[in-house]
Amino acid sequence: MVNRQITLAARPVGYPKESDFRLVESQIPVAGEGEVLVRIIYMSVDPYMRGRISGVASYAAPVNLGDVMVGGSVGRVVSSNDAAFQEGDIVEGFLGWQDYAVAKGRDLRKIDPTLAPISTALGVLGMPGLTAYFGLLDVCNPKEGETVVVSGAAGAVGSLVGQIAKIKGCRVVGIAGEDRKIDYLLGELGFDAAFNYKTTGDYYEKLRELCPDGIDVYFDNVGGEITDAVLRLINVKARISICGQISQYNLEKPEMGPRLLSMILVRQAKMEGFLVFQFADRYNEGLRQMAQWIKEGKLKYAENIVEGLENAPRAFIGMLRGENVGKQLVKVSDS
Amino acid sequence: MVNRQITLAARPVGYPKESDFRLVESQIPVAGEGEVLVRIIYMSVDPYMRGRISGVASYAAPVNLGDVMVGGSVGRVVSSNDAAFQEGDIVEGFLGWQDYAVAKGRDLRKIDPTLAPISTALGVLGMPGLTAYFGLLDVCNPKEGETVVVSGAAGAVGSLVGQIAKIKGCRVVGIAGEDRKIDYLLGELGFDAAFNYKTTGDYYEKLRELCPDGIDVYFDNVGGEITDAVLRLINVKARISICGQISQYNLEKPEMGPRLLSMILVRQAKMEGFLVFQFADRYNEGLRQMAQWIKEGKLKYAENIVEGLENAPRAFIGMLRGENVGKQLVKVSDS
Repeated sequence: MVNRQITLAARPVGYPKESDFRLVESQIPVAGEGEVLVRIIYMSVDPYMRGRISGVASYAAPVNLGDVMVGGSVGRVVSSNDAAFQEGDIVEGFLGWQDYAVAKGRDLRKIDPTLAPISTALGVLGMPGLTAYFGLLDVCNPKEGETVVVSGAAGAVGSLVGQIAKIKGCRVVGIAGEDRKIDYLLGELGFDAAFNYKTTGDYYEKLRELCPDGIDVYFDNVGGEITDAVLRLINVKARISICGQISQYNLEKPEMGPRLLSMILVRQAKMEGFLVFQFADRYNEGLRQMAQWIKEGKLKYAENIVEGLENAPRAFIGMLRGENVGKQLVKVSDS
Repeated sequence: MVNRQITLAARPVGYPKESDFRLVESQIPVAGEGEVLVRIIYMSVDPYMRGRISGVASYAAPVNLGDVMVGGSVGRVVSSNDAAFQEGDIVEGFLGWQDYAVAKGRDLRKIDPTLAPISTALGVLGMPGLTAYFGLLDVCNPKEGETVVVSGAAGAVGSLVGQIAKIKGCRVVGIAGEDRKIDYLLGELGFDAAFNYKTTGDYYEKLRELCPDGIDVYFDNVGGEITDAVLRLINVKARISICGQISQYNLEKPEMGPRLLSMILVRQAKMEGFLVFQFADRYNEGLRQMAQWIKEGKLKYAENIVEGLENAPRAFIGMLRGENVGKQLVKVSDS
């Protein structure tokens, strides 16, 4: 039996290409002392991975050429040298793009497959869900009746942010890049308004129309010209959460934009970049609340699943191009 | 007796010119019910005034053409219909660019001339002092041993920010635009390092040299390329206070700059615009503490005084061009 792995073959210039990745084969690893061997079932592809393969030091070490790609996965325990895990358990961890992985037991989270589909441990009940929950509620503190704008609104994080804001009684306006996404936000998720930035000429005018009372909270997954337009419409004491800047990740040269800080000043606004890890000691609170909202039918989620580890690069590139609605996953093996 | 007033004659394009202002004469006003007539002694010119004459609605109503210029002043009570004020009292208020002004008693602050020179009510013991105090301590929460960078470091606010950061045990690096200002920061005010941005080619390299442990707190009075360079060097969980953006106020066309939000994101930084008014209920705390530090010799201040109301436009323009060290004042009449 072999372990198929996807490694980084070249540092992408601009948008990654499939040839920037390589499928290699190695032996299935063996669990050492305190370790667990996991067969991966679902694998997550996320925007942050673009940063990791850029070769620029960021909040985490970059993936080096030849390294197995990093990422979160859900899988089944094959063998365990940690008493907390049994063969057959479903676990979630940072296991990389491969069929099998070994991890320390302390780095794995046990998933109860009777509570929700196990794939949700990578989405609404995992990192993206916690990102939406804490990034909106803690960083932005939205209040009933306020206007909340979300960019990347149909993605894994944005689609949850908008719904949580609705639960909190806000007026929610979403920005996304396909008409079917707009239909989804308005028809399925209950957003108050939404527009397709790819078919809208003047973002500022459109936002002004859709946000007649200005913008109190902005949850930014995208950056660039969308954010420029939003910031022109923020209200006094607006709160801006910088979760992602996906519009900038694949540029070959850094982009220039209008200077924004005078707007932050005159509006006495607060802008904060955050990473979900800073809320690690409160993950259980977030997961419990999100699970409760799902049970009550207040929170919906979508998954976009590509089959086959070998298709992970394509799924990743498609996600960066905005082809997914909801969480983009790769199914690596059967449950 | 006439009341000389300076009115706005034209909306400035780029840097204001003296011809954008006009000296006019009117009758000395009469204090009505609950009002106080004040003879102005010192008048303040401040960067925020550039925004008020731009004709763009901001956090305050713009000055209209023909209006008397707005601004804070210190003066002596000539007559009072408010029992809280007596003839001869020294008061501070938002009295405009003129010899005499009438104000509601509730809009005036009584100044004790035995505690400090009355001009300080417009500087270290007034709006600029409170701006420095709350903008640094409340917005940025600097901790002992952290590196604090201040732009506009020799101005009315910046020179106090740096000294307060020193009092809190920080390493303080100042940026200013003249060698005599750098000498003042290093020799008089005890800054740890400082540089003249007008004679420095690469701000980023200079800051990297002067901030070997990165930048934890940035107090920004200036914006533009200085801020671009600072933000490339911020540490994780950096706090950035946007107090002013004087480099941008006199541009004829808005300037473009590198997009910064990815840096805010990966450093999990917080950036906040603030106006001193938001701390109005704590002014006494700030004033008491600043007075205490002055008494202890821990806080120094400089004043740059131009004589004559008719020279206020020149003083204002000079301040916008960075000609002053410390607080720029206009002396309108004798104490």
